[in-house]
Amino acid sequence: MKSFIPYASDSDFSIYNIPFGVAYIEDEYPACVTRIGDTVIDLSYLFDEGYFDEFELEENVFEALVLNPFIELGKKITVPMREKIQQLLLEGSALENDSETRENAFFAIENVEMLLPVHVPNYTDFYSSVEHATNVGKMFRDPENALLPNWKHLPVGYHGRASSIVVSGTALRRPNGQTQPQANQPPVFGESKRLDFELEMAFITSTYTNLGESISTEDAENHIFGMLIFNDWSARDIQKWEYVPLGPFLAKNFGSSVSPWIVTLEALEPFRVAGPVQEPEVLDYLKYEGDKNFDINLQVGISPQNQAESIICNSNFKYMYWNMSQQLAHHTINGCNIEVGDMYASGTISGKDENSYGSMLELSWSGKNPLKLQNGEERTFIEDYDTVSMYAWCEKDGKRIGFGKVETQILPAK
Amino acid sequence: MKSFIPYASDSDFSIYNIPFGVAYIEDEYPACVTRIGDTVIDLSYLFDEGYFDEFELEENVFEALVLNPFIELGKKITVPMREKIQQLLLEGSALENDSETRENAFFAIENVEMLLPVHVPNYTDFYSSVEHATNVGKMFRDPENALLPNWKHLPVGYHGRASSIVVSGTALRRPNGQTQPQANQPPVFGESKRLDFELEMAFITSTYTNLGESISTEDAENHIFGMLIFNDWSARDIQKWEYVPLGPFLAKNFGSSVSPWIVTLEALEPFRVAGPVQEPEVLDYLKYEGDKNFDINLQVGISPQNQAESIICNSNFKYMYWNMSQQLAHHTINGCNIEVGDMYASGTISGKDENSYGSMLELSWSGKNPLKLQNGEERTFIEDYDTVSMYAWCEKDGKRIGFGKVETQILPAK
Repeated sequence: MKSFIPYASDSDFSIYNIPFGVAYIEDEYPACVTRIGDTVIDLSYLFDEGYFDEFELEENVFEALVLNPFIELGKKITVPMREKIQQLLLEGSALENDSETRENAFFAIENVEMLLPVHVPNYTDFYSSVEHATNVGKMFRDPENALLPNWKHLPVGYHGRASSIVVSGTALRRPNGQTQPQANQPPVFGESKRLDFELEMAFITSTYTNLGESISTEDAENHIFGMLIFNDWSARDIQKWEYVPLGPFLAKNFGSSVSPWIVTLEALEPFRVAGPVQEPEVLDYLKYEGDKNFDINLQVGISPQNQAESIICNSNFKYMYWNMSQQLAHHTINGCNIEVGDMYASGTISGKDENSYGSMLELSWSGKNPLKLQNGEERTFIEDYDTVSMYAWCEKDGKRIGFGKVETQILPAK
Repeated sequence: MKSFIPYASDSDFSIYNIPFGVAYIEDEYPACVTRIGDTVIDLSYLFDEGYFDEFELEENVFEALVLNPFIELGKKITVPMREKIQQLLLEGSALENDSETRENAFFAIENVEMLLPVHVPNYTDFYSSVEHATNVGKMFRDPENALLPNWKHLPVGYHGRASSIVVSGTALRRPNGQTQPQANQPPVFGESKRLDFELEMAFITSTYTNLGESISTEDAENHIFGMLIFNDWSARDIQKWEYVPLGPFLAKNFGSSVSPWIVTLEALEPFRVAGPVQEPEVLDYLKYEGDKNFDINLQVGISPQNQAESIICNSNFKYMYWNMSQQLAHHTINGCNIEVGDMYASGTISGKDENSYGSMLELSWSGKNPLKLQNGEERTFIEDYDTVSMYAWCEKDGKRIGFGKVETQILPAK
């Protein structure tokens, strides 16, 4: 497949990708878009020009501030629509020869501002990397019994805050809150001193189910539109003091950052791999067949203000112990209903090697082993004006697709 | 004040109340409504007839499936609009003499179906009753140190699932899930055997704040539109197995039930009372002045299928250790943003007496002391086909206002 739009061989946005996002175009209007190389394509304009007439849709679903109306069409329509977009971007297509549409619908990436791609009715965060859960258990509980008794029997998860999910490029302030610097002493109020990222991926659901219904592992992927990169910002000192017994709350809900592009499950299809062996055997409703993990390279970089970036983590989504199908089956086994646009994050994705840990907590082993950055500075946690960037991409047989990045600068506390 | 609409002296819906809800009217159309006695008033019709022209609104905010467009106007408008409605319902008003409007806008409560009154973008559950937290601590942790170290320093809370909040009258299925019946043995899959209610109240916010902003205890009530009754259904056996370390998840998200009427803070004004003394002293951002608790009588009843109701709990919202202003100040101290329609539940509201405990867990002391119902049956937890009803009302100086009820029948597991 060759597109008539040129792109670099290492671009995340090859003809094989065709991700979806929402852009504010030339400071004038929002539209749902896709991207090839550094060219952003206004799908709303293509729609108005009749390029999607064969789908007989009543309204222009791409003329929207979020992708929800498009996603809500369901995969029976969104999958062939994405294929149609891919065809339109191939050499020799009708669109290549339609210079007026190309002039009005194609924009350089520098001339658009990417927006949060979906309205998120519900956000859940899982805790599905065995390496991450083991590291946390070793640090804070018993190194000999690092995993809690339930961990290998169910994908542990909790509900997060949807309102504070922001798109890449949105700066976040260091949170204030209560911490207990000294055991058995009263708490103090002030800024978090242990601000951390968590390297995660998240999937977006494409259906509404009824309360009382469950989704099987076999059917789960039919409810998943696509994925994005998710940075689950965490204030470790606030979390430590607040989280017993009801879980993380203010340590997380000051902000979570996502990449602007949703890569579809269909684009990820060539990158399926087997997941780790699950031992002990899981209960029936969590059993699954086929390859449900995905080989997605992950990287995290830190850039101190006006300084070069240091890559501090190389991980991979394929390490996940619990896959997305199991997560969704578990989430709905009690009848919990899902909605279009829901975001389900993986939990921190750590690998076995020390340089594959997906959080500063693990990389610096709770602050004991500072990381050296390229400019000679050290980091145990994230400092003011640092920018944290996360990257995700797949490569196989000379084909590359990717998610771009989620990039967030931390501003000082108020 | 005397309304031209008659109502019983013990009605929750006196002229002093003027709550807001959304009704599906005579199986034909939805509208935002209020209620006096057993008469439901279509506010959308009153709007179209010009009764709210003085507010110079561009569109009919009552012509909606949810109260969010109305609430979003802000209390500077919604408070005088509620007063205007109250005036219109007094003897001698223009509305009393407008028989055509009365015929088209007034309906008997039996002829409407009450809907979920708000779209809930975010739902948080607190844990703010010291009696409840103490009871739970005594049962499951150390009776001598029942409260965890953080409990008296901050209003512990966690995020819940917004998608599964349903209105009174919606039956819920007993959830299936994982439990661990025997310690140190593998979990089993099946229906919850310890299904419980939690007697709670919830408040609804009326503003959007920006990420990074905090709300002070002094300002908090300016962001609160009103309150409703909240039943935080809980599967105790699922919760016990899943909740460490990230909090309750499937034990709660199979359904939460709310009353259809939102009673405004203004209606509750005469029922303010002082809260309990907070010792140790709280941090500055949690200090407050004035009476921030409310004297709201609470009751819970169980009706086995086709049987009379037994009242099993008499509690009161005034027992809350942490008040709503403190909850909202804490929730936003880290910069977490709030949205119009957000629901913030109190946590189980228990009092000091054994008959004031707000859950079966406490009433039956984890199943050890079965409750006797009127028909001679016993209950430790909720059984299939039981209907649980919660009531809330205020009375003072011969004036009564109330919330009606939230009523939910439990159907067998799938």
